[in-house]
Amino acid sequence: MALRVGVIGGGQLARMMIAPAVELGLDLRVLAEEEGMAASLAATAVGDYRDAATVLAFARDVDVVTFDHEHVPQDVLAALVEAGVIVRPGPDPLRYAQDKLLMRARLHELGMPQPEWAAVSNADELQGFLDTHGGRAVVKTPRGGYDGKGVRVVSAGTEADDWFTALAEDARGGALLAEELVDFSRELAQQVARRPSGQMRAYPVVETVQRDGVCAEVIAPAPHGAGRLSQVASRIGLGIAEGLDVTGMLAVELFETTDERLLVNELAMRPHNSGHWTQDGAVTSQFEQHLRAVLDLPLGDPEPSAAWSVMVNILGGPETDSLDQRFAAVMEAYPAAKVHTYGKAPRPGRKVGHVTAVGEELDEVAYEARAAASFFED
Amino acid sequence: MALRVGVIGGGQLARMMIAPAVELGLDLRVLAEEEGMAASLAATAVGDYRDAATVLAFARDVDVVTFDHEHVPQDVLAALVEAGVIVRPGPDPLRYAQDKLLMRARLHELGMPQPEWAAVSNADELQGFLDTHGGRAVVKTPRGGYDGKGVRVVSAGTEADDWFTALAEDARGGALLAEELVDFSRELAQQVARRPSGQMRAYPVVETVQRDGVCAEVIAPAPHGAGRLSQVASRIGLGIAEGLDVTGMLAVELFETTDERLLVNELAMRPHNSGHWTQDGAVTSQFEQHLRAVLDLPLGDPEPSAAWSVMVNILGGPETDSLDQRFAAVMEAYPAAKVHTYGKAPRPGRKVGHVTAVGEELDEVAYEARAAASFFED
Repeated sequence: MALRVGVIGGGQLARMMIAPAVELGLDLRVLAEEEGMAASLAATAVGDYRDAATVLAFARDVDVVTFDHEHVPQDVLAALVEAGVIVRPGPDPLRYAQDKLLMRARLHELGMPQPEWAAVSNADELQGFLDTHGGRAVVKTPRGGYDGKGVRVVSAGTEADDWFTALAEDARGGALLAEELVDFSRELAQQVARRPSGQMRAYPVVETVQRDGVCAEVIAPAPHGAGRLSQVASRIGLGIAEGLDVTGMLAVELFETTDERLLVNELAMRPHNSGHWTQDGAVTSQFEQHLRAVLDLPLGDPEPSAAWSVMVNILGGPETDSLDQRFAAVMEAYPAAKVHTYGKAPRPGRKVGHVTAVGEELDEVAYEARAAASFFED
Repeated sequence: MALRVGVIGGGQLARMMIAPAVELGLDLRVLAEEEGMAASLAATAVGDYRDAATVLAFARDVDVVTFDHEHVPQDVLAALVEAGVIVRPGPDPLRYAQDKLLMRARLHELGMPQPEWAAVSNADELQGFLDTHGGRAVVKTPRGGYDGKGVRVVSAGTEADDWFTALAEDARGGALLAEELVDFSRELAQQVARRPSGQMRAYPVVETVQRDGVCAEVIAPAPHGAGRLSQVASRIGLGIAEGLDVTGMLAVELFETTDERLLVNELAMRPHNSGHWTQDGAVTSQFEQHLRAVLDLPLGDPEPSAAWSVMVNILGGPETDSLDQRFAAVMEAYPAAKVHTYGKAPRPGRKVGHVTAVGEELDEVAYEARAAASFFED
């Protein structure tokens, strides 16, 4: 009988696991939040991932549970483990992807390079952090859900008062995370796969370009990244995967500072936007690798299959009906570009797909990917 | 709304259309012969493709109908066209994939190089063909279903008497196809994609290695194939696609003779075993290309993405329970090999999957693919 992987969450990351699951002969089952989601083809259940009974019922028929996102509450994860369900990544590592304060503290223990940071419980403490860090800082809600994105640049201790109030009203209480405003030259991402049995493989470090806080473009591998940079990045990725006991894919978002250090920004314990290029540009895609890793199957080769890959996200615009025509226009103009769609209704700013180009010359590859993606701009 | 492609037949070719359909955002719907087939994930109906009512009901909800195999009877195809269903490839080209005598006659009209052949209606006529072709010949049933494989090498006119008897009992009657026994140095396959609007793209010609009449291995591109050979092969493929008005993927199986001619052996109007390497070794896989072609979307780049690809079929052996373990062993030993499984119960000689290796050195690539596949031999 085919190995059964249960994915909690029906978004595009679950969707992109379908293709490798079919080829590897795995039985992929998705618990989707609602009907008609990106991964609906593989959805075997629809329900609330915050409800333990729903998740337990879904998990009863699978060999391993994994995730499209990190939002499953710890009490639901604990109920799964209690019931004997194999959960990868497990509740312990997921804690660090769910709570940025825990993550900072744990990375500090592991000796990982990161921005200067502090837990701040009120405006005075935040002002104190500002005073010692040049008068500006990034403030983050440690756990999602307080605000749109939960990230804000402030220059006064009172600029996060709404969040402090929300924290006080939240039963879990706690503090906000204050971080120094890092003077970075660019952002990078390091992906690593890790099996429960300990085998690990690192992908090449990539450069990520953000626009309005959303990943816009990924260049793989990161230009000028050979040698020391890639060694340091993969050492960080492998160290975190091992130190946090991550199983499956781990993405470590990094700042490359103007003084040439790498600092850990964020973690994601699942396939990640920074690795979509691997579908077309690596021997083993991050989606196949994640499935192999959570099933404790031998990991695939993470090497690039071409010199350069560039992935450009497609964001939904105000026009909602012309996506198919635009894809056809891209296919016509760029027959070597790889178009991936998420089956999602386009809304302004929503990621609805991506385009990847692969080749030997970075200039040409980047031009092709950007030109193809430009068909989706208004 | 997503474009809807209906595939008649639930085998591995339909299965391997699932991955590109998901990525392209297409709604793939499969009419499977029974429950639990290779393409069951995309099966929206189960029924007999020889029954017009069943096929019409299935076709009502799709934008285009295409095929996992060429066995849908002409009267069913006619009923579809009559009902206004778009069928690609259409009944006319499919006729030539269904009837080898029609195919030989039409290729002759098109001036295509092929083995010497004749329609023979009885033992005397077959003996006459043998007498003028060195005393041995290949005899084929023009349409499938009379015998196991419908291909036999004979050296006496009476050696096909059982087939002549079966023909006489068949309402359609007709003759057998006799072909000269070609003195070939190797077998090749040329794949071509063609859209209804006329656009065509040729894949590189590949070498196919048969064992016991079954495709065992494919080397892409065909070694020593650059230059004249590949030009002649692609001219043959493109000429047949256009001449027969094929839409979708066309595979032309070719003999390369010891005196360096190319002769057409068989045709297949669908994705084909000789093109499985394109999943991992070409910019656009044959499965994506078939979907694009039958939807009249612009075709993708058919170029190889690496210098060499070698695909080795996995045939089911007597052991039926250890396939998963064997796949894991392959993954362990050859992390760069791409394993594809068909979700089929292994039976001796049955194709249950394939392994592809890709790289810059043919020796290494062939070694890797063969070594990986050898894990499935007893």
